[in-house]
Amino acid sequence: MIKRVRVAVVGVGNNTSALVQGIALYRQTGSLVGIRTPVIDGLGVADIDFVAAFATSDAKVGKDLTEAIFMSPNNFPRLAADLAPAGVPVTKGLVDATEVDRVAAALAGAEVLLYSAPSGRPDTARAYAEAARVAGVAFINTTSDPIGRDPQWIERFEAAGLPLLGDDLASQFGTSVLHNTLLRLLAERGLTLTSSYQVNLGGTEDFRNLVDNPNTKKQSKLNALSAADKVQLAPLGYLSQLKSQKVAHLNIEAQGWGETTVSLDVKLKVHDPSGAAGVNIDLIRIAASALRNGRGGYPTEASPLLKSPPGTSI
Amino acid sequence: MIKRVRVAVVGVGNNTSALVQGIALYRQTGSLVGIRTPVIDGLGVADIDFVAAFATSDAKVGKDLTEAIFMSPNNFPRLAADLAPAGVPVTKGLVDATEVDRVAAALAGAEVLLYSAPSGRPDTARAYAEAARVAGVAFINTTSDPIGRDPQWIERFEAAGLPLLGDDLASQFGTSVLHNTLLRLLAERGLTLTSSYQVNLGGTEDFRNLVDNPNTKKQSKLNALSAADKVQLAPLGYLSQLKSQKVAHLNIEAQGWGETTVSLDVKLKVHDPSGAAGVNIDLIRIAASALRNGRGGYPTEASPLLKSPPGTSI
Amino acid sequence: MIKRVRVAVVGVGNNTSALVQGIALYRQTGSLVGIRTPVIDGLGVADIDFVAAFATSDAKVGKDLTEAIFMSPNNFPRLAADLAPAGVPVTKGLVDATEVDRVAAALAGAEVLLYSAPSGRPDTARAYAEAARVAGVAFINTTSDPIGRDPQWIERFEAAGLPLLGDDLASQFGTSVLHNTLLRLLAERGLTLTSSYQVNLGGTEDFRNLVDNPNTKKQSKLNALSAADKVQLAPLGYLSQLKSQKVAHLNIEAQGWGETTVSLDVKLKVHDPSGAAGVNIDLIRIAASALRNGRGGYPTEASPLLKSPPGTSI
Amino acid sequence: MIKRVRVAVVGVGNNTSALVQGIALYRQTGSLVGIRTPVIDGLGVADIDFVAAFATSDAKVGKDLTEAIFMSPNNFPRLAADLAPAGVPVTKGLVDATEVDRVAAALAGAEVLLYSAPSGRPDTARAYAEAARVAGVAFINTTSDPIGRDPQWIERFEAAGLPLLGDDLASQFGTSVLHNTLLRLLAERGLTLTSSYQVNLGGTEDFRNLVDNPNTKKQSKLNALSAADKVQLAPLGYLSQLKSQKVAHLNIEAQGWGETTVSLDVKLKVHDPSGAAGVNIDLIRIAASALRNGRGGYPTEASPLLKSPPGTSI
Repeated sequence: MIKRVRVAVVGVGNNTSALVQGIALYRQTGSLVGIRTPVIDGLGVADIDFVAAFATSDAKVGKDLTEAIFMSPNNFPRLAADLAPAGVPVTKGLVDATEVDRVAAALAGAEVLLYSAPSGRPDTARAYAEAARVAGVAFINTTSDPIGRDPQWIERFEAAGLPLLGDDLASQFGTSVLHNTLLRLLAERGLTLTSSYQVNLGGTEDFRNLVDNPNTKKQSKLNALSAADKVQLAPLGYLSQLKSQKVAHLNIEAQGWGETTVSLDVKLKVHDPSGAAGVNIDLIRIAASALRNGRGGYPTEASPLLKSPPGTSI
Repeated sequence: MIKRVRVAVVGVGNNTSALVQGIALYRQTGSLVGIRTPVIDGLGVADIDFVAAFATSDAKVGKDLTEAIFMSPNNFPRLAADLAPAGVPVTKGLVDATEVDRVAAALAGAEVLLYSAPSGRPDTARAYAEAARVAGVAFINTTSDPIGRDPQWIERFEAAGLPLLGDDLASQFGTSVLHNTLLRLLAERGLTLTSSYQVNLGGTEDFRNLVDNPNTKKQSKLNALSAADKVQLAPLGYLSQLKSQKVAHLNIEAQGWGETTVSLDVKLKVHDPSGAAGVNIDLIRIAASALRNGRGGYPTEASPLLKSPPGTSI
Repeated sequence: MIKRVRVAVVGVGNNTSALVQGIALYRQTGSLVGIRTPVIDGLGVADIDFVAAFATSDAKVGKDLTEAIFMSPNNFPRLAADLAPAGVPVTKGLVDATEVDRVAAALAGAEVLLYSAPSGRPDTARAYAEAARVAGVAFINTTSDPIGRDPQWIERFEAAGLPLLGDDLASQFGTSVLHNTLLRLLAERGLTLTSSYQVNLGGTEDFRNLVDNPNTKKQSKLNALSAADKVQLAPLGYLSQLKSQKVAHLNIEAQGWGETTVSLDVKLKVHDPSGAAGVNIDLIRIAASALRNGRGGYPTEASPLLKSPPGTSI
Repeated sequence: MIKRVRVAVVGVGNNTSALVQGIALYRQTGSLVGIRTPVIDGLGVADIDFVAAFATSDAKVGKDLTEAIFMSPNNFPRLAADLAPAGVPVTKGLVDATEVDRVAAALAGAEVLLYSAPSGRPDTARAYAEAARVAGVAFINTTSDPIGRDPQWIERFEAAGLPLLGDDLASQFGTSVLHNTLLRLLAERGLTLTSSYQVNLGGTEDFRNLVDNPNTKKQSKLNALSAADKVQLAPLGYLSQLKSQKVAHLNIEAQGWGETTVSLDVKLKVHDPSGAAGVNIDLIRIAASALRNGRGGYPTEASPLLKSPPGTSI
């Protein structure tokens, strides 16, 4: 019987809530609904145990992981799974590099550290990566802060024989992949794009952070869109009523034979944290498989799951 | 300088209107907007001349092709092209096989016969195919009546060294390709389809005919949809107000990680006859190229443009 | 303390399921969510007890009302209410007028008979109305079969001092009222309607019956729409996947100042049986109030809740 | 025969373009399409002549009004009307109150001054109002800067026997009236609002100004919405590709009987400047009628056309 992956997680927000609850659900039901990759190197989606969790919120620290994931401002819904206590109290996250050793000690017994904190704190990300290296643990960076695409970090993990996966999660199903698929289809059929827009609305803390600091994300989205000169992005809208759902409105105006008009309007509604968890579940298993097989450095099979894998600009 | 293709056309409905007007537009503007394949074997989209046209409507017979394309019940819009008279009076179409020789005589000088009449009259389709064979002209069957996928007809055209292309046009951009692309994207990302529907509304005579006789079309659409057991088609709706536009409403409900819901709503608006003309322009050039190069029988490069190419069931 | 209304119901379909479950829910929660009229003559929405139920389905006969409402083909969802058994076994419905006395006997103790069977069986409707009259019970006809708008029936109930309410339920919130409100708003603001369509999709047995027999409903819908000559209805679509939900797609194209275009696209999603129950709850209380106050005949305050009240054509 | 109203206009933007072109169109066609009020006190929509125009853009100054309305950044489309030169060269607008007399002199012969400049320059608005008063001309303030709702200005115009109409145009057909109508309909039918959002996208200079300075507009929009605590506004999106069109996406989630869900999604597409012109045409005729009938001060029949008539807070 396969040994479950022992995972530590940094950040106890919605994405961790979706991951913890989803694993419990799949373990209880045996369902494969919504699963992208049922098995990776023998590991199923339920073959994961959480062994440590770090958070900065004082309210969450000390609570069991299965309790902390429902605390404010988290607003991902309660799934239909029975959640027994994980026996994993949330530990105070590190503030600066002086705490690397404390965190490394807390990682004893873990195989994978999933870094799932908000983007925009590169020093913190690096400190956790260092703690993982010291502790002999694989590291996954789901934020856009550069670790996995930084050659120095790759070398360091390679030298230690440890996997390093990053950066920046590509959602299981999000606006960019949908918009791009439609634009590509039009081009394949010979239609000429006239104009196109994209509106993104959401209600999570992550979304609120993006709204306050939209430029990076906006450019990253435009980069992700083919035919981007004809595509315009409306400002991100934080609407608390949406809770953990994201709503996108897409419009595409094009011309076909005889320059006649073709128009497409799309509304997408999706739980953002599910989109993250559905990819994290694969990254964790790729990381564990690489670690167990002695493959240090970047496992290239992670690339389809990342927005900024090694080789992309920092 | 390339010799323009000499085309005869059966049926002077919306699809022929879109084709005739579009060719004039592209010739005048040099534009490539909405064009899927700018050049096929040296032939551009404007390298086509109409030399004969057949219709059953007494009102259209005797009128110049450029006048007849605007007559009722045609409702494709007038494009922004100056339409000089084609010098091609519409000829009375054949009623039965006794008229094959009359039609064959009228095809003198043509290289390609584009059969663009309504579907559902297999005897008529065969009589025109026979006239083309007798006259030494390539034949394109855009209807679902079986000619191009009938092995006997393929043999007959091969023996005569004449190209035969059919059956049933795949629109340049229609509901099926859009719906399928979305369903495939969901599957690729690991989402599980819950349910999906498709509503098609249109205002052309073709659409009205389909509404009166929907079963074949409905099954054909379902066949075209992957994951079809979860996909339901609403009855086709003939709405005269839409004129030559088709409107489709698609809904897709799915589940992602943790069995959370994902929903997609799409509205597509497109001119149906443009979708046909944008494919006919390629079929005509493929047919002419094959004829000029002495390739009889079915030119396989036509397959992506056809719903029922040779090898599909009759 | 007010005496609860004692109601007998004919038809144990989705509409009855919504009514029975909703009353239980409101009784348990005290909520007023989704309630149009909290109190009518002292009667709240929870002040109703079911005392008899009639159905034609052999499977339902003999089952407790609270069990029968979940039996196939019913597909209205299970609401978040605890449903104690009603102590009301479903009785075999009448087949012809010879059974009037049997039904009248079964109505002993009831104050109101809610006739909630499918439309299109006028003889059956009249037999139940006669049974109610014989038993001294108020009668509500929610079908389009003419009873309440038939002067002879009104006289008969007046003579007996019994209330008679009908015909044909106006849903609490449906496509017609929405479409009409939008068309009226456009007209008020001086916009000129160009064209408009309405697509209705549903998954209930009622909907399937309408699809098989659409003409009456279609005309009735068109009658209900102002500016109807510009409004076109797509054929009703029965899509089992929708279960008890109705989906409507509306489009309105208009012109404003300078003949510039204005367009509106609307998608409505609503549970059809809730729309019926939200009106039945008011009709029942109006009927009981009239009965208790000795007002026989038609209580005019029911008119906003009916599509065909007395005075409309039969 | 009625004497045409002699109008001077401040601001030669999209709204003036829509007004000038629309009047020409209606004069040439006799059409009443898109007209809210065909006749006001004998005055039809074509009974208007422009006699002066003021703009701040050096490029527009000196050009004929019918030419200036098509100059950048204006992007309202060219309507299907022949526009003979108006014989009205655009005059340099005033910069400060020292130029009141120059403007007053230029108003000689005018009956109405339509102030149609961007909002947010109250000093400029007041200077033009003063010029109108000095010149004996009625004044219409279409901006949100307080003139018409300022008691001192009302008194001043009353004393002079001159009409004063303001403030802030209510569009002929915009997002607020649509959203409100839908929310009101839900409430009337007893549905309970759960949540609702509104996204507004546009491509005019006016829209770009609002995006840069959204707070006032956002609050004004929320004020305009009943049930506003459940309604959230996404940030305005300036999308140049939309040109003079505004697109709004509305969503309404509610609960009906049994607390079951009702959802409404709406897309509105409308030319913003047409919405302004369709109201300005009425304000001009009300102003002229009041002036000709010797009614100074505020003509109360203008109230339905204004967002902030006298009596609303400044």
